[in-house]
Amino acid sequence: MITQELLEDALKYGKCFVRNGNTASYIPELQRVNKYQLGICAVGMDGEVMEAGDSRVPFTIQSISKIISLILAIRDRGADYLFHDKVGVEPTGDPFNSIIKLETKTRPFNPFINAGAIAVASCINGDSSDEKFERFLSLTRKLCNNETIELNENVYRSEKETGDRNRALAYYLKASGVLEGDVEECLDFYFKMCSVNVTALDVANLSGLLANHGCCPATKEALIESQSAKAIRALMLTCGMYDGSGEFAMTVGFPAKSGVGGGIAVSLAGRMGIGVFGPALDEKGNSVGGIKMLEFLSDRLNCQLF
Amino acid sequence: MITQELLEDALKYGKCFVRNGNTASYIPELQRVNKYQLGICAVGMDGEVMEAGDSRVPFTIQSISKIISLILAIRDRGADYLFHDKVGVEPTGDPFNSIIKLETKTRPFNPFINAGAIAVASCINGDSSDEKFERFLSLTRKLCNNETIELNENVYRSEKETGDRNRALAYYLKASGVLEGDVEECLDFYFKMCSVNVTALDVANLSGLLANHGCCPATKEALIESQSAKAIRALMLTCGMYDGSGEFAMTVGFPAKSGVGGGIAVSLAGRMGIGVFGPALDEKGNSVGGIKMLEFLSDRLNCQLF
Amino acid sequence: MITQELLEDALKYGKCFVRNGNTASYIPELQRVNKYQLGICAVGMDGEVMEAGDSRVPFTIQSISKIISLILAIRDRGADYLFHDKVGVEPTGDPFNSIIKLETKTRPFNPFINAGAIAVASCINGDSSDEKFERFLSLTRKLCNNETIELNENVYRSEKETGDRNRALAYYLKASGVLEGDVEECLDFYFKMCSVNVTALDVANLSGLLANHGCCPATKEALIESQSAKAIRALMLTCGMYDGSGEFAMTVGFPAKSGVGGGIAVSLAGRMGIGVFGPALDEKGNSVGGIKMLEFLSDRLNCQLF
Amino acid sequence: MITQELLEDALKYGKCFVRNGNTASYIPELQRVNKYQLGICAVGMDGEVMEAGDSRVPFTIQSISKIISLILAIRDRGADYLFHDKVGVEPTGDPFNSIIKLETKTRPFNPFINAGAIAVASCINGDSSDEKFERFLSLTRKLCNNETIELNENVYRSEKETGDRNRALAYYLKASGVLEGDVEECLDFYFKMCSVNVTALDVANLSGLLANHGCCPATKEALIESQSAKAIRALMLTCGMYDGSGEFAMTVGFPAKSGVGGGIAVSLAGRMGIGVFGPALDEKGNSVGGIKMLEFLSDRLNCQLF
Repeated sequence: MITQELLEDALKYGKCFVRNGNTASYIPELQRVNKYQLGICAVGMDGEVMEAGDSRVPFTIQSISKIISLILAIRDRGADYLFHDKVGVEPTGDPFNSIIKLETKTRPFNPFINAGAIAVASCINGDSSDEKFERFLSLTRKLCNNETIELNENVYRSEKETGDRNRALAYYLKASGVLEGDVEECLDFYFKMCSVNVTALDVANLSGLLANHGCCPATKEALIESQSAKAIRALMLTCGMYDGSGEFAMTVGFPAKSGVGGGIAVSLAGRMGIGVFGPALDEKGNSVGGIKMLEFLSDRLNCQLF
Repeated sequence: MITQELLEDALKYGKCFVRNGNTASYIPELQRVNKYQLGICAVGMDGEVMEAGDSRVPFTIQSISKIISLILAIRDRGADYLFHDKVGVEPTGDPFNSIIKLETKTRPFNPFINAGAIAVASCINGDSSDEKFERFLSLTRKLCNNETIELNENVYRSEKETGDRNRALAYYLKASGVLEGDVEECLDFYFKMCSVNVTALDVANLSGLLANHGCCPATKEALIESQSAKAIRALMLTCGMYDGSGEFAMTVGFPAKSGVGGGIAVSLAGRMGIGVFGPALDEKGNSVGGIKMLEFLSDRLNCQLF
Repeated sequence: MITQELLEDALKYGKCFVRNGNTASYIPELQRVNKYQLGICAVGMDGEVMEAGDSRVPFTIQSISKIISLILAIRDRGADYLFHDKVGVEPTGDPFNSIIKLETKTRPFNPFINAGAIAVASCINGDSSDEKFERFLSLTRKLCNNETIELNENVYRSEKETGDRNRALAYYLKASGVLEGDVEECLDFYFKMCSVNVTALDVANLSGLLANHGCCPATKEALIESQSAKAIRALMLTCGMYDGSGEFAMTVGFPAKSGVGGGIAVSLAGRMGIGVFGPALDEKGNSVGGIKMLEFLSDRLNCQLF
Repeated sequence: MITQELLEDALKYGKCFVRNGNTASYIPELQRVNKYQLGICAVGMDGEVMEAGDSRVPFTIQSISKIISLILAIRDRGADYLFHDKVGVEPTGDPFNSIIKLETKTRPFNPFINAGAIAVASCINGDSSDEKFERFLSLTRKLCNNETIELNENVYRSEKETGDRNRALAYYLKASGVLEGDVEECLDFYFKMCSVNVTALDVANLSGLLANHGCCPATKEALIESQSAKAIRALMLTCGMYDGSGEFAMTVGFPAKSGVGGGIAVSLAGRMGIGVFGPALDEKGNSVGGIKMLEFLSDRLNCQLF
């Protein structure tokens, strides 16, 4: 079973590798983050919380938000519609922002690459970017059990300014009939959802809920369907760590979703949720220290999938 | 030598094939054009004009405008800068609106595919879309020797509304550092330049000037450098007929640039310029009747390149 | 827990869908197999065996052999060398016989697509195709706990005759410096290893051994390292069902490897191994009836990964 | 008009650039050639010959042989069959040995990339590689007006040993139903045809015949149809200089076909044929000194196409 001591040891181990990584460099707000920060938090199925290191330091959720927007879109449209008409569920082996596959396929490969996440975002109900985002933020607060979660305005503005590659993907999806509604409203919402500030604790709560079959470990409230939680855990395993997903499955074996803000969400069904923060990234965009902490835990806990 | 009779015969021959083609269908203004129209005009090096069929019917210039924007960008930035930093000069074998090659190359392949033409458009001086377009329109009128050439507002609005594939290309180029300045201003100008109304006569005048080494056959005014006219004729031969350029070179052997409005510009150095209008297109986007008229002339005139 | 009744019910359920599939058509030996056959076998960790339907009907192992050749190559060369120098471990999203990715990558994506399996096969010790195959066959018999397993000579000859796409992959890998040794010897071995006759019982034994951390459930003999068994189960989940792996992970959630002979190997760590035979395939090359039986069991047993 | 002095000046000019190139490095026989050699030969329409530099030094014909095999295949099968069923006529913008496009197209793009040339080679009549090659050699001697032309056995053996990339292309074409007959016989012939020794004089004679509408300038014998000569000249312009064809068309404007042995064939309809030899290659595989000599002549002769 997980213990405070184990978390502390994992943290100590992970810290040894942080210097090998670098913060994301495409916007100044991410680049200037102190790369030596590292934190971890675990939430058990009965709601108990264990933390070590920088587990209360806020960082932007980035691609981990793709889990929440997918939950919202499944609510609004149903999983059948989403996974048959809008996105697939296959891993691609390509970088997260690749455009190549779009020209040969009718739908983006999966909801965790940018193209797929943008297609999913366009399916969320709401007449405007603001309305979509309000619904997203409200759900995020519930899933993370933290009513104080807010948008990071500076990151949002920078994301929006530098988001031309995502704009290209979005207009391509619009031209292909995949993206619904107004492209700029969809993109504005997408940049906002990626720019929400969370902590490792928040991410652990979200992950714990997915591990607990959709039920909040702390409040026992059933927030998403068990079936959706299961589908998302499967997607996390096959597609959650960008084009390093296969290697992470083999070496760590946890369903996980990372973001370039340095976060990783890990969901171990019936066992626990883990939230990680470590902004030093490897060349695939995954937290270096975070992966090492998870390797450490995978070796010592008997809960990896393989 | 070309004669009025030969033009009439070519027209008669071309008309037999028009029923095999269809007007462009992506905007209603192009789709509802009468596909049975066909016209041709030839301009000799001393300015004499011969015409047959619908040579005075206005149509939108579409991709033939890529010749004029390239001339303008060469003036503004120089051929060296353009062809080394912004676009290449190689044919691609891909459809005109393909995005695939952009992910593996640093520059678009050539200025006659959409991606390349958008990159070139971004290099034209002018603080706004309006300013760029004013300069473009003024040059177009001079090169075509027709001061009444105007924008087709309806086509422009439709192009702008449906131009998401081109938007995707433009934002991709922006993200790759190829496109200069504001993307939306560049695109607005691009949609405008494609929506200018011309006739086969206008196109023949433009082609005649390129054939006459940059000098207007009618006014004898030297409007572009001989070197630029030569480079453009070479590009027309290798890249001017979309992914049918190789076949057109083999069967007709004329340097030509087509547009989905049904126009084709043909420039035979030291001999003549030809303008064609025939809105019924083949599956590659080239005028069916136009190609047949040019095949007919190529067989009878001794001026094809091969 | 699994029961005989459950297996029978799964079989009955699976049979309803068989008519939607078709046998592989690329060689006559596979095409003329009776597509209505269906069988399943489960092997528990203490060696008990349960069977239903056509579980003793021989069929060719095809791509399931990629598990065994990988085990052999890991023995001969070590996992580090194999997974860093010869193949990756990432799913591709492309069809199993795709050649496209090879031109942009230095190594094939994973050992379960044809290109990767051929690269792995070239790393197996043995001076000739015969020597390699003898070692492969001997290991297969041990892993499947069946000393009577033999090559299907007719299938082997047909595979060899029609294997030009695989030849293209192999020569491409040779030209890229990935494939070791003689190409034709390697291919001959590859065609042989795919053409070995097995039954659902044999496949269940192999799967049971992988589930039992490398230890044969019947004889308790430790045949492969626990670490290798784990790596292979992870690969089965992310890459085992061709370009349907992501969907299978989401809907069934079992680590599985299929073959176009109609077999599927399923390995549930610490629980059981399952072998399936159903030669009617879906358009991705996976057994239609087999997938349905596994869906049925996944819904009723509490042992899926997600 | 061309003069001996002009040729000498072109040679002097070309020599200045030779140090920037390197001999082909994939086989020792090509790599160890003295890269400072440079020669040129021009053949007029009445058969007069002018030479400068190393115009009588033998080198392997390499890709220039694709012209001759195409002529032979057109004779055996007709241009219609070849260009509709076996290869296209579009330039690709990809390197000469690229395999990527084959997966998305039914036929190779054109007869001058390796895949297309192999497909064409398979259409040449002859029961064995030897028979095909005998017919090829006999035609080569006639077209080059030199009965002493022979195979370079060493180059042939090296080509065959290292030809795995071409083998991959050939087996891929076989699997796709494009390549006819036995793959290894076809490849053996292909390696032989590329390994024939010629001189700049021989290449100039071949080019002169193509320029003279298929009629040998020296003997006045009509060896190929005027229509075939025309088609080949068009293909040379659009596809003859690998993925540097577009730039060569713009800067030099001659229909040309190069080979990695350092040869270039240039065919100026009704004017002359030129043969070039200069084994120092640029990064696209074209003779550095050869291109410079042709640039020099293009600037001074009034016979470029644009």
